[in-house]
Amino acid sequence: MFSKILIANRGEVAVRIIRACKEMGIETVAVYSEADQNSLPVALADERICIGSNAAADSYLNQKNIISAALASNAEAIHPGYGFLSENPEFAALCEEKGIIFIGPDSNVLRAMGDKDNSRQLMKEIGVPVVPGTEILHDPAEAKRLAAEIGYPILVKATAGGGGKGIRVVEREEDLEHAFLAASEEAKSAFGNGDVFLEKYLTSVRHVEMQVLADAFGNIVCLGERDCSLQLNKQKVLEETPCPVMTEDIRKRMMDAAVKAAKAANYVNAGTVEFLLAPDGNFYFIEMNTRLQVEHPITEEISDVDIVKWQIRIACQIPLDFTQEDIHLHGHSMECRINARSTGQVDFLHIPGGSRVHFDTALVQDCLIVPFYDSMIGKLIVYAKTREDAIRKMEAALCEMVIHGIHTNIEDQLRLVRNPRFQKGDYDTLILPELLAEGGTELE
Amino acid sequence: MFSKILIANRGEVAVRIIRACKEMGIETVAVYSEADQNSLPVALADERICIGSNAAADSYLNQKNIISAALASNAEAIHPGYGFLSENPEFAALCEEKGIIFIGPDSNVLRAMGDKDNSRQLMKEIGVPVVPGTEILHDPAEAKRLAAEIGYPILVKATAGGGGKGIRVVEREEDLEHAFLAASEEAKSAFGNGDVFLEKYLTSVRHVEMQVLADAFGNIVCLGERDCSLQLNKQKVLEETPCPVMTEDIRKRMMDAAVKAAKAANYVNAGTVEFLLAPDGNFYFIEMNTRLQVEHPITEEISDVDIVKWQIRIACQIPLDFTQEDIHLHGHSMECRINARSTGQVDFLHIPGGSRVHFDTALVQDCLIVPFYDSMIGKLIVYAKTREDAIRKMEAALCEMVIHGIHTNIEDQLRLVRNPRFQKGDYDTLILPELLAEGGTELE
Repeated sequence: MFSKILIANRGEVAVRIIRACKEMGIETVAVYSEADQNSLPVALADERICIGSNAAADSYLNQKNIISAALASNAEAIHPGYGFLSENPEFAALCEEKGIIFIGPDSNVLRAMGDKDNSRQLMKEIGVPVVPGTEILHDPAEAKRLAAEIGYPILVKATAGGGGKGIRVVEREEDLEHAFLAASEEAKSAFGNGDVFLEKYLTSVRHVEMQVLADAFGNIVCLGERDCSLQLNKQKVLEETPCPVMTEDIRKRMMDAAVKAAKAANYVNAGTVEFLLAPDGNFYFIEMNTRLQVEHPITEEISDVDIVKWQIRIACQIPLDFTQEDIHLHGHSMECRINARSTGQVDFLHIPGGSRVHFDTALVQDCLIVPFYDSMIGKLIVYAKTREDAIRKMEAALCEMVIHGIHTNIEDQLRLVRNPRFQKGDYDTLILPELLAEGGTELE
Repeated sequence: MFSKILIANRGEVAVRIIRACKEMGIETVAVYSEADQNSLPVALADERICIGSNAAADSYLNQKNIISAALASNAEAIHPGYGFLSENPEFAALCEEKGIIFIGPDSNVLRAMGDKDNSRQLMKEIGVPVVPGTEILHDPAEAKRLAAEIGYPILVKATAGGGGKGIRVVEREEDLEHAFLAASEEAKSAFGNGDVFLEKYLTSVRHVEMQVLADAFGNIVCLGERDCSLQLNKQKVLEETPCPVMTEDIRKRMMDAAVKAAKAANYVNAGTVEFLLAPDGNFYFIEMNTRLQVEHPITEEISDVDIVKWQIRIACQIPLDFTQEDIHLHGHSMECRINARSTGQVDFLHIPGGSRVHFDTALVQDCLIVPFYDSMIGKLIVYAKTREDAIRKMEAALCEMVIHGIHTNIEDQLRLVRNPRFQKGDYDTLILPELLAEGGTELE
């Protein structure tokens, strides 16, 4: 086993990884920006090295400084957490070159799966369904012909699009030509590339992802799904497992698809295969996340597998000591992401407690919330035997949590878990703004 | 279900009960002494009523004021927690008289099992082994004759004894007469009663107790054992489950004995049957604790049964919805009691987190530790699949915990979990002072 690991991250995930290392008897090196000097992970780690000023580009994205810190501290491996350099093939390659183990898949896999067209193509080849769509189109006439095959409603999407630009929903054939030209024009002026393609427009879909763990010896297990449909501006807000509408049949097929995807990608380490699940039970591959996910803890709760510890063991060439048959998913777990809506000092902090309630966070009494990084300040995670009990536990925990000195989304999360439609499990990827507007009532 | 419960306690157990109520949709009334006005349970409860000044006799033992508070707030039931009035038959009878449900066994059972001679007698009648001993003796000659039957070493114990007074260990027959007279004399002058009896002196025994839950319909389940051998001055310090030396055979026999004991006592609600376990695998009933135990959470972790919620349901005449066959004990859990060794303000508090680590406490940032009550300020509880992993988790959590402003026993607990003999599970009821003196080394 490694004797020392450097954690190339900050905040709650750095704390999460340090705690895992402590339980495994591995020393830890925290790297930090100037703004994070007094942060919890820096206090908890065995060693600490400042790697730059506040901007992420100067610190948590500063590959050279992070590698130097690893070499200077004799860390044998780097855990990148999520975000920052976690899916960066150049960084993984740089680690490989310097003889440092990157805790994640190797740079080739990061590169291959990071290219969305490539990964989509790979899935098609192995028979994992992707959202039906086309290659780049030459003209509106070609678009019309292919759209008729796929069926309306349909999306016209610019290959270079992003942030809602270069995308059009088309309900009827007579609107296609105009949408085609408008999306192309918009993408050309915004991104300098007017190429567009078609994709089936799926409505009322859920974002359901599968957690896989693959070791260096070809063993792959799937730890079940997470429903991450509840999103605001493409940011996940509340995740739960099992997915409230999951059936045994769909789960089996989706797990098989996820394992097949990981196998085809020669995937090693923890990874997540994301799907859209349609109301008819069909699902479609979106992408593979080649890192630890923010929402990994809910899977840990229902599977009794410590994903972070296994990431470390796998990177250390230790084979999985269990098979798919040993995994018995049980109970229900959910996570509410707690976000800061302002910066400043947390002048009173009370974290709710009790069995099977935990708040993964780097918050401590009197800490400063700085403006330089992601706004997520913690993840409130509960586990219970049933979904109803998990909701009750989450409601009680949200009520108990106190974070004074800054604004947070705690009230929104409480409104969400009290919403009757949420409680029925009746939601899709677009509904969250509506649910928050509706509000909710306390459970009786 | 009850709509409102009054919690006749303070500190961590009051918080524990309030959280259970919140998850069950039951309103709560906190009663408090003047010193506890700003305490966490008072803040968390839906209603709060001051019941007296700081001394427990004026507040948490003030039966009249507690009953008045229950009547004034329309609480249908009172949860007494542990300590204070939890095993007081007069209080339970007073609740019954006033039409308030006492969450615990009824006053007759409290009375019957609270009388140690009576409960010992009951066990003998139903064939549950008790520590071999005699009735009250008339003279040293009778003592000698009976001691020969029981075997040496033997204890001479005064019936009125306590706090180490009126008790003598006798290794050989020639010392018995002198010990008999000395113990009798000592008890007579200390307690006004010189009656003595003999009891087998068990060495290298462990304190192992069985948790039972019995509903009002005759259903009884046993949730396995807790090893509470690690004690200082008869106060439990660290508890774990399973007991490290337990075998399937002993567990089965001990569980059967516990269920038999509860049945014979017509026991209803949560209770604990305490045994001494000898190295030869024989065990002996000591007493039955007719209340929630401090260390109940470790049983909850390995059994997935919420004991506090079931106490409430049972008191509400709800039958157990599971049988003994549904209980599948799994993994390992331990609890370190964290005690204050001084009073004052907690000016910095950091509670360790992560999955399956929780600190049951009423501590909050800036709270005051007052001198009027028990010194226990919290219970650090971990769960893991194996005992070794649980120890590692406990070690990491103890290292992470910060309670500034007062003195605590955190360092002692850390020394204990790092002690190699503790790690081997090699301990008995007398060994803790020795282990603490030895110290320990960090796990590799």
